[in-house]
Amino acid sequence: MSSKDFKDQENLKISHIGEKKLIKRLLSRSRALQPDSPFFDEFYFKSLSDDAALLNIADNYLVVTSDLLIESSHFPSKMSAYQKGMKVVTVNVSDLAAMGAKPIGFILSLGLPSDLCLKEFDEIMEGVLKACQEYEMGLIGGDTNQSEELILSGTCLGTVNKDKVLMKEGARPGDIVAVTGPLGVAAAGFEVLLYSPPNDDSESNDNKNEKEFEEFTGSLKPTTLELIRKHALQPRARLKEGILLADSGAVTSATDITDGLTSEVGELVEASLDGVGITIFQDMIPIIPEVREVAAVLNKDPLDLALYYGEDFELLLTVREEEFEDLNEEFNLFQVGVVTGSGRMEIVDKDGKTKILEPKGYQHFQ
Amino acid sequence: MSSKDFKDQENLKISHIGEKKLIKRLLSRSRALQPDSPFFDEFYFKSLSDDAALLNIADNYLVVTSDLLIESSHFPSKMSAYQKGMKVVTVNVSDLAAMGAKPIGFILSLGLPSDLCLKEFDEIMEGVLKACQEYEMGLIGGDTNQSEELILSGTCLGTVNKDKVLMKEGARPGDIVAVTGPLGVAAAGFEVLLYSPPNDDSESNDNKNEKEFEEFTGSLKPTTLELIRKHALQPRARLKEGILLADSGAVTSATDITDGLTSEVGELVEASLDGVGITIFQDMIPIIPEVREVAAVLNKDPLDLALYYGEDFELLLTVREEEFEDLNEEFNLFQVGVVTGSGRMEIVDKDGKTKILEPKGYQHFQ
Repeated sequence: MSSKDFKDQENLKISHIGEKKLIKRLLSRSRALQPDSPFFDEFYFKSLSDDAALLNIADNYLVVTSDLLIESSHFPSKMSAYQKGMKVVTVNVSDLAAMGAKPIGFILSLGLPSDLCLKEFDEIMEGVLKACQEYEMGLIGGDTNQSEELILSGTCLGTVNKDKVLMKEGARPGDIVAVTGPLGVAAAGFEVLLYSPPNDDSESNDNKNEKEFEEFTGSLKPTTLELIRKHALQPRARLKEGILLADSGAVTSATDITDGLTSEVGELVEASLDGVGITIFQDMIPIIPEVREVAAVLNKDPLDLALYYGEDFELLLTVREEEFEDLNEEFNLFQVGVVTGSGRMEIVDKDGKTKILEPKGYQHFQ
Repeated sequence: MSSKDFKDQENLKISHIGEKKLIKRLLSRSRALQPDSPFFDEFYFKSLSDDAALLNIADNYLVVTSDLLIESSHFPSKMSAYQKGMKVVTVNVSDLAAMGAKPIGFILSLGLPSDLCLKEFDEIMEGVLKACQEYEMGLIGGDTNQSEELILSGTCLGTVNKDKVLMKEGARPGDIVAVTGPLGVAAAGFEVLLYSPPNDDSESNDNKNEKEFEEFTGSLKPTTLELIRKHALQPRARLKEGILLADSGAVTSATDITDGLTSEVGELVEASLDGVGITIFQDMIPIIPEVREVAAVLNKDPLDLALYYGEDFELLLTVREEEFEDLNEEFNLFQVGVVTGSGRMEIVDKDGKTKILEPKGYQHFQ
């Protein structure tokens, strides 16, 4: 290594390697330092590819998930305080839903700017408590701290029977790949909410931007606007579905779609045995007319909204083929592909041509 | 309410009411919205005055604690990345120690500025993993997010036998009030680390400040400087002591001293039955010579460092009087007072005069 290389290495920023590599780096260090802890077996079982820690409690796993939301990264300016509060609960509950776990309680750590209005604080808490109520659990702890920007850090506890738990690992060639609802709806909402008009005037100001934003959204049907806004700003976790799907015993693996279909398909493939692949059929991906309408106005490909954006919080599942029809009747699933023995992620386009599906999706730091 | 009053109410900032009132506000809203959840009894037991949630698991409680550390609020500039990593584990483990619970696992959610050096990220993780190792638990989960300042959000899981658990509630008149170690040491460290020389020159720059800082610390004994720095920057949780003290069965209530002795005495009194009070004896408060040395140099009262600053992470206990001698032999405790039936917090000063002990300590937002 030359001294220049070494200097570069010294100055390497986390933005140069991206979120997924950062987490892998962390996990490999973690395993190196914790080779044979007796607690590892006695108390918990952890799949390093899942988004939650699992603890052995008799016939059940206690599932613990933790997710952090930060003003500058996670909250578009049009999201209300109430919606921010709901969202920190929803993102955590969605991790439980993907495992088929039933929530027990929620713990909230807050970072609050000292000039935050008490009214806004109250509204955040209304959102948190309302969401806890809807997902049938209690707010059981928390603390407050001073910070420069708003931080909502949630920890959610749940429980699931060991025989029922859904993991990212488990897909087998021949299984049906399905999702619980249409994709790209939240993405369409974010594209509209974050829309900034092309800047043809260096003196443009907020009022002008607001006016152009209204003109732009005025070109969409009001019902479309309402639907996509709601999906983006007030998403729901597929909790009931997750629990019932786990109960069915027909689901072989699952995850929630937070980073786009492609990225999550990649997660299932990576967690599975060597040689397991997934093929997606473009024509089967559920894209609703409202998403096509927004994509047309924005001159985007609606498929990109479904494949590469996240935040829909639908579940992605693999289901034993012979049980899929029965399950589909009950849950109104959407088949999007099949599990293969190819070891690859592929997509069959609308002309029937098979291409490699590149696993890109939203990553922090990039 | 006049329209001006109403306007003021609308604009009220959280900094106007302070952290403790904010938490009370949150808890009362929380109880109002969650009146009769069936989960409340089935799964968990929560003392609203303790810093952790307790879940019923057969003969044990699962203890879950969550603490958030934020660069601008919690990390002095002289704290290394490694020490920041250790600290997020220590503050959480200290909550377990105060309940006599044994750690099982740690979950870390990170907020990272995108220009953070990979080297610093690695050092933070070394600190986290080293602390997990020392407290004999695994790092069992986590996620990373992009943020403007460094955020370390920790969740710690532990377990304690239901018959042994230590709570803030439980002090009875006649009990001895004791602490596990000297107080004000971390406070002395922070006072020195945060020392900025009186500004007699508007053009003073960082180099000059650094030089004056070195001159200032040069007036302290090197061994003093090392000791107080270590207590401030790399504190340890009294975990072994907490577990063994809980096992003894002689401790009636406990908490960890994170916000200063006075504030924590207030917590024990508030959690206890009506009429329970605590009297502290000034002469009994363990203040080491190094703290007196720093206080003299800074022209401060060493007693203030012990009473009103926190971060020592010693435990504050109440112990049945007849069992105190035996316990003291084993643990080298320091008696600081007695539990009374006065309902008040009092301090007997060095002249034997009894005064009301005002419950002030560090609060965010104020």
